[in-house]
Amino acid sequence: MSYTAEILGVGTELLLGNIANTDAQMISEGLSALGINVYFHTVVGDNPPRLKSAVDIARSRADIIITTGGLGPTCDDLTKQVLAEAFGKKLIFHEPTAERIRSYFKNSIRTNNMTENNLQQAMLPEGCEIFENAWGTAPGCAFESGGKHVLMLPGPPMECRSMFINCAIPYLRRLSSEAIVSRAIRIFGIGESAVEDKLRDMMVSMSNPTLAPYAKEGEVMLRVTAKADNEELAVAMMEPVIARVRDIIGDRIYGIDVDTLENTVFDLLKEQQMTVATAESCTGGLLAKRLTDIPGSSAVFKGSVVAYASEIKNQVLGVPKTILEEHGAVSRPVAIAMAASVRRMMGADLAVAITGVAGPAKDERDNPVGTVFVALSAGGRHWCRALHLGADRSRIRIMSANHALDMIRRYLTGVEILPE
Amino acid sequence: MSYTAEILGVGTELLLGNIANTDAQMISEGLSALGINVYFHTVVGDNPPRLKSAVDIARSRADIIITTGGLGPTCDDLTKQVLAEAFGKKLIFHEPTAERIRSYFKNSIRTNNMTENNLQQAMLPEGCEIFENAWGTAPGCAFESGGKHVLMLPGPPMECRSMFINCAIPYLRRLSSEAIVSRAIRIFGIGESAVEDKLRDMMVSMSNPTLAPYAKEGEVMLRVTAKADNEELAVAMMEPVIARVRDIIGDRIYGIDVDTLENTVFDLLKEQQMTVATAESCTGGLLAKRLTDIPGSSAVFKGSVVAYASEIKNQVLGVPKTILEEHGAVSRPVAIAMAASVRRMMGADLAVAITGVAGPAKDERDNPVGTVFVALSAGGRHWCRALHLGADRSRIRIMSANHALDMIRRYLTGVEILPE
Repeated sequence: MSYTAEILGVGTELLLGNIANTDAQMISEGLSALGINVYFHTVVGDNPPRLKSAVDIARSRADIIITTGGLGPTCDDLTKQVLAEAFGKKLIFHEPTAERIRSYFKNSIRTNNMTENNLQQAMLPEGCEIFENAWGTAPGCAFESGGKHVLMLPGPPMECRSMFINCAIPYLRRLSSEAIVSRAIRIFGIGESAVEDKLRDMMVSMSNPTLAPYAKEGEVMLRVTAKADNEELAVAMMEPVIARVRDIIGDRIYGIDVDTLENTVFDLLKEQQMTVATAESCTGGLLAKRLTDIPGSSAVFKGSVVAYASEIKNQVLGVPKTILEEHGAVSRPVAIAMAASVRRMMGADLAVAITGVAGPAKDERDNPVGTVFVALSAGGRHWCRALHLGADRSRIRIMSANHALDMIRRYLTGVEILPE
Repeated sequence: MSYTAEILGVGTELLLGNIANTDAQMISEGLSALGINVYFHTVVGDNPPRLKSAVDIARSRADIIITTGGLGPTCDDLTKQVLAEAFGKKLIFHEPTAERIRSYFKNSIRTNNMTENNLQQAMLPEGCEIFENAWGTAPGCAFESGGKHVLMLPGPPMECRSMFINCAIPYLRRLSSEAIVSRAIRIFGIGESAVEDKLRDMMVSMSNPTLAPYAKEGEVMLRVTAKADNEELAVAMMEPVIARVRDIIGDRIYGIDVDTLENTVFDLLKEQQMTVATAESCTGGLLAKRLTDIPGSSAVFKGSVVAYASEIKNQVLGVPKTILEEHGAVSRPVAIAMAASVRRMMGADLAVAITGVAGPAKDERDNPVGTVFVALSAGGRHWCRALHLGADRSRIRIMSANHALDMIRRYLTGVEILPE
């Protein structure tokens, strides 16, 4: 059977607009990979009658209710109480959880001490399965009642994510005798509609596994999902589908079940013990920022020169004035010179450089907004892409960085660096 | 009277987890500034019966329904049809809107041509107020029916935001004979609970205007909201409150009704015709990235050296080896030397430098994760903050950049650079 789930975000801060409901996004993505249909998200404040009314609506239209938030130690945190009462479950003191909370406070350097309120978190619905919290004190839990499944997760995104992956997904997998397995094929360098065009016949003719494309920021994700009696079988069923997608999309696939383009590049660099440096103009440090978002990036990333003002390209990066004057700062020769120079300066194995017009106005040579050159310098050679990325500043910057990462990825995997 | 609103996000991509519901966050923040209570958010897919059921629930518990999404030209986009039918309104062809759509296609460089579907967007509920779309073809609209107000906005965040600000807010303001005005006091350098402690007596004793603190990422926002017969009066009522908050919080207030810390710094630099450069280690380009997020930043930002590997601090920034060896890369003398050096290299009026341990591990000198030094070099002098920012990598990086921006802001406004 196919389950439906509703995600119920609990927290007044969501209704005030202090934060976006990223928990619901993360959980939805996970449920879609499990083949569970999500038809509604609801957000409600820390208000018991309104929370109760939202729970009543959710149970009338979904098999599984997943709450996020309201599990903390303050008197506002009432999710457990309201949900337990709604489903006729008592809250019972759970000594092992209390012990875990006590030792959490004993072992961590915290300015605030444990209060009796913290032990309230050890009150849990009778007969529930307890989800341990790897990042905080609030445990989550799950129970079944009258054919409905209730899962409660904490609100802080780090806690919610880790508990969802480590506890909720295994719980949900056990609901079904079928194994549903899904894989994510990550693609850069071709738009969603072009991917759809190429794969339409294949997608339409398939029912198990299924194949569906999703547009991500500047890239495309293809989700393959298979149902079978067991996991091995489901995994095996996906193999020929993935092989066929590889044939059709080719080296624009940068990874399967990987995180991001920058993580893929990081892994490749680390594997090959190579280092990288960047020289950035219009991206203004965004590429370096993305590479250093990754814990452990110091093993592969040397540094960057952000040469935002034109004269810095000469004064700091040493791009010859003659080249800058002849071709302008936004040009192929300048991008190549920037890459070669930053590679030398930083003593890196390879380097990328980005120079372009992110707007709001054309540059002094009348290059329209969106004109960008991305160069790679490696192994004594160089390559350069000339791009036209539209008029949106933020998109121009993200896509420019994506292209730089894609060129590194292609170099390190030995596929054509300038396709088409 | 005080209105309640429900925000109804329409779009299957939200339920699949492809995007977060940032429209609901943006609108919630705006409604809270208008004194309109938001008790629920709902997200539903592009499915007419389920959308209809969500509309029925929303109308039973809110005075105002604001939908986002589902106004596009594809056959999936059914928000207008479902809402109009639910409230007994016919859809009527609106020639001026059709003309606007035709000319949009005529005047813009697009690869896709206008189709008959695009003209579907000119079908609008009878008697509605039309909201023009500054960024796309889909118009929004608002109507009243049976005491309920329905507002429909497009889903893409840029279109939604601009239509909400330019069309929906004025519509909502007119619903009330009272003027509700609100101002945002932006604070950096003191936590939310400390702000609450200092202002508690004041907050508790006030009912109009009201004063409420909100935690933002690494900073605090105080919202002052006043109701009065007219806007002038409401604005005047807030003056003494703002003055008193200024007395209590002092120069930790970095702006009122401003965007972000980096925008505040950008405005100050531009006003004073000063330029800035940055040298970054653990932030890895994040500060440069944030400064160059701002269109027009080239007027004030020269560039940055991201010296992520230790040797780059010497080889590129010229920090003497003796200093690096004696004090270690994460130290006050190195931060100061980095700032002074990048200021000279880039010919900037002022420079900031950040060096620290963002984790995952301690550095080789046993500095714990979260140890960060932020230095400012300006006018032949220098200042340095020593910070301990906890263990979360992302927070360490954001807070380090915030501190650097705060030091620049303090220098340019002539207040103490190292308070406390």
